Amino acid sequence: MAEKIKWVHKDFISLDNLSKEEILYVLDVASSFEEVLKRDVKKVPTLRGKSVLTLFYEPSTRTRTSFEMAAKILSADTINVSVSTSSVSKGETLLDTVKNIEAMSVDVVIIRHNCSGVPEFLAKKTKASIVNAGDGRHEHPTQALLDMLTIKSFKNTLQGLKIAIVGDILHSRVARSNLIGLKKLGNEVRFVGPATFIPKYFKELGAEVYYNLEEGIYNADVVMVLRLQKERMGAGFYPSEREYARFFSINKKTMNYAKKDAIFMHPGPVNRGLEITSDVLNDKRCVVLNQVTKGVAVRMAVLYLLLTGGKGEN
Amino acid sequence: MAEKIKWVHKDFISLDNLSKEEILYVLDVASSFEEVLKRDVKKVPTLRGKSVLTLFYEPSTRTRTSFEMAAKILSADTINVSVSTSSVSKGETLLDTVKNIEAMSVDVVIIRHNCSGVPEFLAKKTKASIVNAGDGRHEHPTQALLDMLTIKSFKNTLQGLKIAIVGDILHSRVARSNLIGLKKLGNEVRFVGPATFIPKYFKELGAEVYYNLEEGIYNADVVMVLRLQKERMGAGFYPSEREYARFFSINKKTMNYAKKDAIFMHPGPVNRGLEITSDVLNDKRCVVLNQVTKGVAVRMAVLYLLLTGGKGEN
Amino acid sequence: MAEKIKWVHKDFISLDNLSKEEILYVLDVASSFEEVLKRDVKKVPTLRGKSVLTLFYEPSTRTRTSFEMAAKILSADTINVSVSTSSVSKGETLLDTVKNIEAMSVDVVIIRHNCSGVPEFLAKKTKASIVNAGDGRHEHPTQALLDMLTIKSFKNTLQGLKIAIVGDILHSRVARSNLIGLKKLGNEVRFVGPATFIPKYFKELGAEVYYNLEEGIYNADVVMVLRLQKERMGAGFYPSEREYARFFSINKKTMNYAKKDAIFMHPGPVNRGLEITSDVLNDKRCVVLNQVTKGVAVRMAVLYLLLTGGKGEN
Repeated sequence: MAEKIKWVHKDFISLDNLSKEEILYVLDVASSFEEVLKRDVKKVPTLRGKSVLTLFYEPSTRTRTSFEMAAKILSADTINVSVSTSSVSKGETLLDTVKNIEAMSVDVVIIRHNCSGVPEFLAKKTKASIVNAGDGRHEHPTQALLDMLTIKSFKNTLQGLKIAIVGDILHSRVARSNLIGLKKLGNEVRFVGPATFIPKYFKELGAEVYYNLEEGIYNADVVMVLRLQKERMGAGFYPSEREYARFFSINKKTMNYAKKDAIFMHPGPVNRGLEITSDVLNDKRCVVLNQVTKGVAVRMAVLYLLLTGGKGEN
Repeated sequence: MAEKIKWVHKDFISLDNLSKEEILYVLDVASSFEEVLKRDVKKVPTLRGKSVLTLFYEPSTRTRTSFEMAAKILSADTINVSVSTSSVSKGETLLDTVKNIEAMSVDVVIIRHNCSGVPEFLAKKTKASIVNAGDGRHEHPTQALLDMLTIKSFKNTLQGLKIAIVGDILHSRVARSNLIGLKKLGNEVRFVGPATFIPKYFKELGAEVYYNLEEGIYNADVVMVLRLQKERMGAGFYPSEREYARFFSINKKTMNYAKKDAIFMHPGPVNRGLEITSDVLNDKRCVVLNQVTKGVAVRMAVLYLLLTGGKGEN
Repeated sequence: MAEKIKWVHKDFISLDNLSKEEILYVLDVASSFEEVLKRDVKKVPTLRGKSVLTLFYEPSTRTRTSFEMAAKILSADTINVSVSTSSVSKGETLLDTVKNIEAMSVDVVIIRHNCSGVPEFLAKKTKASIVNAGDGRHEHPTQALLDMLTIKSFKNTLQGLKIAIVGDILHSRVARSNLIGLKKLGNEVRFVGPATFIPKYFKELGAEVYYNLEEGIYNADVVMVLRLQKERMGAGFYPSEREYARFFSINKKTMNYAKKDAIFMHPGPVNRGLEITSDVLNDKRCVVLNQVTKGVAVRMAVLYLLLTGGKGEN
């Protein structure tokens, strides 16, 4: 277990500005919250009297619900604002929207936005804590943390592993956050997919790049399959679903390229039969639902650290 | 009062698979919760630390709000997901959506869906409790239970009554759930409406069928008026609103066909002046708002039984 | 501090039917709640077991969120209904919708509607408390109260002040509620804007009318800038944004027409650079965010008084 450290961050924007020790500390706190999730009465008073607002400019069920569950289990109050019903349509600037929310005594604003950098921009301008729930192609740090917590629980370590991330790397904030976090902890990260999804300059980010699935996941401990966004088809990224699946789908056969005890992950929502097949999803080495459960624990940890600095009772 | 029995069901899908004793037991539990609703402080800690998620694929104010009130009064946490903002638009399967929700430590998923059979399908595949809040033309079991609780409170019995259900029987899950429940308790159920709304084979379901309003509600103890869905007009079901109202509207005159002390019910939302007139709605024999109040109590009972097996303090 | 008085109103519809003493009393109660908002644990049990429903027929982030925060801090349960997902689309009358909500044991219905008079109409027909969160061009009483609380905190008085309201007076329920409230407390209220926004008969409402900005805000203690609704452009109200801004924008230069220690307010959301410039918004005399914070306190006071009559512990 990582030593208890002093939490100094007002916001949770990126894994880039967290140290290795801080990442391990968040994971340890999350582990301790996993126990709460197994209780019959899933409720602790830790964040009573605190308020958490979700401000989502992109639709999402799972991430918003996961944060909302996390906040409620910790006894915080939650308020949801989605873009379709917000004043955004009235021409207010994003910063004014968030400054107003903050002025209503909201303690944490959890934001998802289609533009990279929005959460960081807001964090500098507000006293409220800003949590990045996904910004453009930039980062999705709580997703990477839940992935790491899942890997740790199945592999009993978080260093020296070979982790292959397969699919649409270019548009994936999940790939980017995982690369940053997993490299920091001393793992080998591979980007695997068609060349259209992995521009040459991505090699400079620190990942090994493979354009061939068999080579890319050979001997991997962990295979993380990304969602194929169907709107990319015909836009020059891949010619057809059939073509993509033929070369990069993780199925009963291609999953054998990895280590025998490799685990298979996916951030969801999945396109069954496209980037991953149903028989893989049903295989016991597939840990997709474990990821989801750990997501709530990770988000509890993030809210707890931001609001108490780790000094609250948990 | 029905004897306290052991509650064995994980889910609440249909009245078809509940025994007469189980139905009466749910109603008794609901009765005891009605008292809570009259308190100045409407709050009991029964379901503290439990989480209830509403997943609505059809719009609804009243049913969603009623379940949400029920859960909150019992101190459960509630999360709402409506289809327009969910990942459904991202092509995820319904089962995957629900498995993900369940993996977030949600205890009960309350689902409304336009396809018959969806809740039952999900119930078999999940550990979370599934509650059917209306599925296609199949069932709407909590609506039937609140109707039964209303009838019982006004008629002081739930057997040997003549109950006429008037209107668009064909498309009505309310009619179907009431037929099943009310027959099980030993009542006569009549389906009354134009032939386009009551196909011949409906007689095999156990209801008396009447195509004439006067005959259909003659001597009835209870008249349950169904909502006329305006989109059926011109689709071969009825020629015009005026034509429908002329033959099947419940108004000051036609309400006299029933017993003098008959009660008049409607699941809402009503089309005033169409299937039922305003003067009937204002009559003291019309118990529409009583139904709504009892709806909260019934949903409290259902959530309580599913989550505690009847062993919690209520 | 105003003397504690007996609160006799079931609803909160308008400042028109409140006495001067009642208005001051609400503001005093709100002041006492401001202290709660500064606490580390922002939670008091005052309205535990009470339920508050927001029913918004117009989109709004700030007002809905502000009421929701107020209710949650007081420990009331909250339920949101917005028109797009409600049964309104099913043809139910507004009164039936509200009667149904009330029948579900909801204690307070907070309504925003584009038709003037809707909240008053509903208030007469229901037992539940109705709160007007803005009705057409009529009133927005909690907005006026938060404006008054803000003025009082910066000016240390709420009488004898010169208060200029600038902009689209005609369509503004905020202007109307402020006029009523501020006049009642003995202030001079000025309406300032182009003639298209201030019809001649508005003089009969009790405001001084000015069609020239410099004259209108000369020597003013408070300048309240209204939002310019862009959809009015080209509809005969103003020819272009540039034209409007040239004559009526509050900027670094025009703000000097007012008193040296004047404060500048705006109900939000603002159009930066149109009716008010960014440098004014950044000026320390601009109190827009103070208004927002006080909005939560005012709404706490309103909910508290309606639900406890001022007899609860606060």
